[in-house]
Amino acid sequence: MKLVSFSHQGRDRFGRVVNEHFIADLTDAFGDLRSVLERDQLPAVRDADGPHIAFSDVTLLAPVTNAQKYFCIGVNYANRNAEYKDGSEPPKFPSVFMRSRESFVGHNVPLERPPESDKLDYEGEIVIIIGKAGRRIDAANWADHVAGFSLMNEGTLRDWVRHAKFNVTQGKNFERSGAIGPWMITTEEFLKGRDVNDLQISTRVNGELRQDDTTANMMFPIPFIVSYLSSFARLQPGDVIATGTPNGAGARFDPPKYLVPGDVVEVHCDGIGTLSNGVIDEPDRG
Amino acid sequence: MKLVSFSHQGRDRFGRVVNEHFIADLTDAFGDLRSVLERDQLPAVRDADGPHIAFSDVTLLAPVTNAQKYFCIGVNYANRNAEYKDGSEPPKFPSVFMRSRESFVGHNVPLERPPESDKLDYEGEIVIIIGKAGRRIDAANWADHVAGFSLMNEGTLRDWVRHAKFNVTQGKNFERSGAIGPWMITTEEFLKGRDVNDLQISTRVNGELRQDDTTANMMFPIPFIVSYLSSFARLQPGDVIATGTPNGAGARFDPPKYLVPGDVVEVHCDGIGTLSNGVIDEPDRG
Repeated sequence: MKLVSFSHQGRDRFGRVVNEHFIADLTDAFGDLRSVLERDQLPAVRDADGPHIAFSDVTLLAPVTNAQKYFCIGVNYANRNAEYKDGSEPPKFPSVFMRSRESFVGHNVPLERPPESDKLDYEGEIVIIIGKAGRRIDAANWADHVAGFSLMNEGTLRDWVRHAKFNVTQGKNFERSGAIGPWMITTEEFLKGRDVNDLQISTRVNGELRQDDTTANMMFPIPFIVSYLSSFARLQPGDVIATGTPNGAGARFDPPKYLVPGDVVEVHCDGIGTLSNGVIDEPDRG
Repeated sequence: MKLVSFSHQGRDRFGRVVNEHFIADLTDAFGDLRSVLERDQLPAVRDADGPHIAFSDVTLLAPVTNAQKYFCIGVNYANRNAEYKDGSEPPKFPSVFMRSRESFVGHNVPLERPPESDKLDYEGEIVIIIGKAGRRIDAANWADHVAGFSLMNEGTLRDWVRHAKFNVTQGKNFERSGAIGPWMITTEEFLKGRDVNDLQISTRVNGELRQDDTTANMMFPIPFIVSYLSSFARLQPGDVIATGTPNGAGARFDPPKYLVPGDVVEVHCDGIGTLSNGVIDEPDRG
């Protein structure tokens, strides 16, 4: 089951993907995805139907538009730590930062390059979405708390991540600089026949493969991430966690390959699908 | 006008402070503080009345319990940069990180020291709460976008802020490790006869003065903070911004003076009031 949030005729809606052409609009019965997860209503959503709306008539939003927390894991794929070339030992714990909901658009909506920086970069990532709240979750029980998976382009303004001595917040929170989507696929369906510790994730820019790795190379595997984050924070239904990006972001090339208007970035994971976003210069909103 | 969020008979409520004993419960007419700010209803709230509830019958919550963003400014008071003793030049831009709503309790509710760390520390801070949304706000227009002021104890688990190479997220996001309150006082009332660039902020632990400084010493004054954050993020009604802490946090003493159960921390600013919190070991919630 794939669930989407979308805008239709100016209103924010929630629904279930019926097929490649249609969404069943379930907003009237269920509200939004966060509410569904808070009320543990995924089984009811599976059986429900509503007005069928064509994908071609909607603008997709991030699957969860109102999460309490959007956590992101920094350097995680093992060969990425080597990319930093500072000779440091592999870290004992992951780097963690947070993004705001306004920093994300949905699938097929362009990322915006702001006038403040020409160093917009892509980072393809696998996303997990919390279903059941929890604190100090045992890594072995991670799947009990994860309702589903999605993809993120964790778009970053490279020159703004090091504005200060500490923290990358600024360069990670430009409005509409990243994307989540296309949908949330439920954990049960996605992991049928798959190993969470061997998922392939790839990112292409204008068709050219830039990132390609497997979660088998994560220094901090997904079950550990759930356990670690919940060691300090209470994970809540709808919380979104981006699990880190493989090497090959644009900043790592010499010279760097930053995104420019007209580029198309595709983040792909078999079983989830492809998150595709163009790039535009931020329009003047007056 | 002072506005509070509180829990009464198990329900989350919103109201206006009538006097030192009573709150007018305005939840039925206005919802919560974020809704009031989104709808630009502060004038209506000023004129409204509702059931009077005694402070002694409620548990205060953070003034905004559901902000989209809780931004925190790192090292800001000038003599604090010197505290780091690393010989670095004063930074050009502030350090910025984010906290989750679950990391905060309200006034007179104890901070919780988790079993993972005995290094719970206080940081007294002046808080601004956004009223009118904005992006790329001119520093000169800051007050048009700030609905009011509050106080924060930006409670921190010191050994968890450096778990990774980058970012302080972990040590800043333990559940119930910080506090905001007691209320939001409106900008207009608070700044009558006061200069936003010369506000005195102090923190006492068990009555002993530990932090005492003025916003005149900020490297990044409040008007600049509003402008800077809005250069990358759209500030939204209800967004909470902690503006940095003076020197004198417990970690800066030799030996460090971390909080222990039974301690009482008071953050004070004339015109806002005093945010007081005890300290307990985190109770077993089963």
